[in-house]
Amino acid sequence: MKTKPTLGFIGLGLMGKPMAKNLLEEGYPMVVHNRSREAVRELVSEGAQEGFSPKDVASRVDIIFTNLPDSPDVELVSLGEEGILEGTTEGLIYVDHSTIKPSLARRIAVEFEARGAFALDAPVSGGDIGAQKGTLTIMVGGPEAALEELLPIFDVVGKKTTHVGDAGSGQIAKAANQVMVAAQMVAMGELMILAKKSGADPARVVQAIQGGAAQCWTLDVKPERLFAGNRQPGFKAYMQEKDLKIVMDTAREYGAPLPSAGLHTQLFGAMLQMGMKDLDNSAVIGVIEDLAHTTLLD
Amino acid sequence: MKTKPTLGFIGLGLMGKPMAKNLLEEGYPMVVHNRSREAVRELVSEGAQEGFSPKDVASRVDIIFTNLPDSPDVELVSLGEEGILEGTTEGLIYVDHSTIKPSLARRIAVEFEARGAFALDAPVSGGDIGAQKGTLTIMVGGPEAALEELLPIFDVVGKKTTHVGDAGSGQIAKAANQVMVAAQMVAMGELMILAKKSGADPARVVQAIQGGAAQCWTLDVKPERLFAGNRQPGFKAYMQEKDLKIVMDTAREYGAPLPSAGLHTQLFGAMLQMGMKDLDNSAVIGVIEDLAHTTLLD
Repeated sequence: MKTKPTLGFIGLGLMGKPMAKNLLEEGYPMVVHNRSREAVRELVSEGAQEGFSPKDVASRVDIIFTNLPDSPDVELVSLGEEGILEGTTEGLIYVDHSTIKPSLARRIAVEFEARGAFALDAPVSGGDIGAQKGTLTIMVGGPEAALEELLPIFDVVGKKTTHVGDAGSGQIAKAANQVMVAAQMVAMGELMILAKKSGADPARVVQAIQGGAAQCWTLDVKPERLFAGNRQPGFKAYMQEKDLKIVMDTAREYGAPLPSAGLHTQLFGAMLQMGMKDLDNSAVIGVIEDLAHTTLLD
Repeated sequence: MKTKPTLGFIGLGLMGKPMAKNLLEEGYPMVVHNRSREAVRELVSEGAQEGFSPKDVASRVDIIFTNLPDSPDVELVSLGEEGILEGTTEGLIYVDHSTIKPSLARRIAVEFEARGAFALDAPVSGGDIGAQKGTLTIMVGGPEAALEELLPIFDVVGKKTTHVGDAGSGQIAKAANQVMVAAQMVAMGELMILAKKSGADPARVVQAIQGGAAQCWTLDVKPERLFAGNRQPGFKAYMQEKDLKIVMDTAREYGAPLPSAGLHTQLFGAMLQMGMKDLDNSAVIGVIEDLAHTTLLD
């Protein structure tokens, strides 16, 4: 049997920690690093080793993963001082699971390629529950040559991996995903408030349209929680808003006018201003409620 | 065995004709009426009788159906001179399958109730193919008392019937349906053009996101046709735009601000201005292509 590669994990948050744990349970040797120490201690108690900087982790592993909040964090950890690139030797594979700007993913790929290493962008969809259950959807951009070694790993953390194309393509797919998700969340809020204000039962309306041309994961899953008065995440609104900012930055950078996604970005921005940043993204209905001066539930 | 009720059918267009035919094949006695004579002759050759006005049809049947283009047509045929109401006697059931304003559906219901008759709004989703195959989704508003007699008929023309609530509720559900459908169509166009402009393969991007949180009927069904260069209907853009006008009129009437549906109404309006009124509603991507000065396919 082939020896398992040693993995590095940087960023042990809501997504990174369960992903790392699932791989640790599969018997992968692992070196971990995280800004806050608590998660490091937890993983070390389960068999991981501690890395003292991104550079240190990179120098001790075959494949290194990051799960970080935003583009500046990834830029610092990958290309900054004591960053991954500084510890990189030929053949290292760097996989970024964060959701960041496609253009940054492309810049990182160029830097690693120049060292004879590989960098792939592999943002995920499916939330913390998907990370815990190992059922994430993984959208991969980067060199096909590195994929063969990664696929058994992706099979542990996810249920579906798509190689979208060259470096940055994974991030573009994630941005595309968020264009559709935001549209569905806003539309669901609008149609529920339309039903409420015009005197129909929003729950019966949703039931009537769930199976037809309007069918979507959002309408299948979220209404039950909203009608039960539950707006807890799920996927937090401020993460949705941050991802939409990436969408709009990317749209501007590459010249793609997105009028509807632009509006949804503003509605999620309003949601944050209204103090709802830690609620589920489906709670964007709160913005429509406010505009309509009503509430979904009596 | 109980005798089948005699049915009246007014409006034998893309939707009405196949629905009437399916019921005729099931052995329902039928009286038909239509502005253009060709469809009448066709149905008469298959066993229907001809009615000479909406009033005439109403006076000869137990249950009467209309399938008409828009609110003014329904108002004329139901409440106008020589209209259905004039031929209505106690106990008649009037079912309108057209997509019209909820407020008009409510007004019609009041008029028929005053005659001791029943009026129900029962707009459908599923297009002409659903009408031909008898697989429509039917959203019903109106008195429960009339439903028992209608359900065997709805089972012939549709695969799913939901009683949403009182008169108008069926139309509200249809409006809600169109809020979501329009949102998905526009989002699909935007995300494909975002992918194209930023240098990823739109087909691979769609493949990557189809199974996740962005999943929807639109993304399941429409991309294959768009990538094959096929923008033929399906569901015609001018019908989508007309339904969105009903959404926005209703939103204004009952005080529900719908910023996103309002924008989508304008984008479908632009589509019509650009000469694409007879294309599929998914061809709204053409508006985004125009804004971005690019095309989905090279």
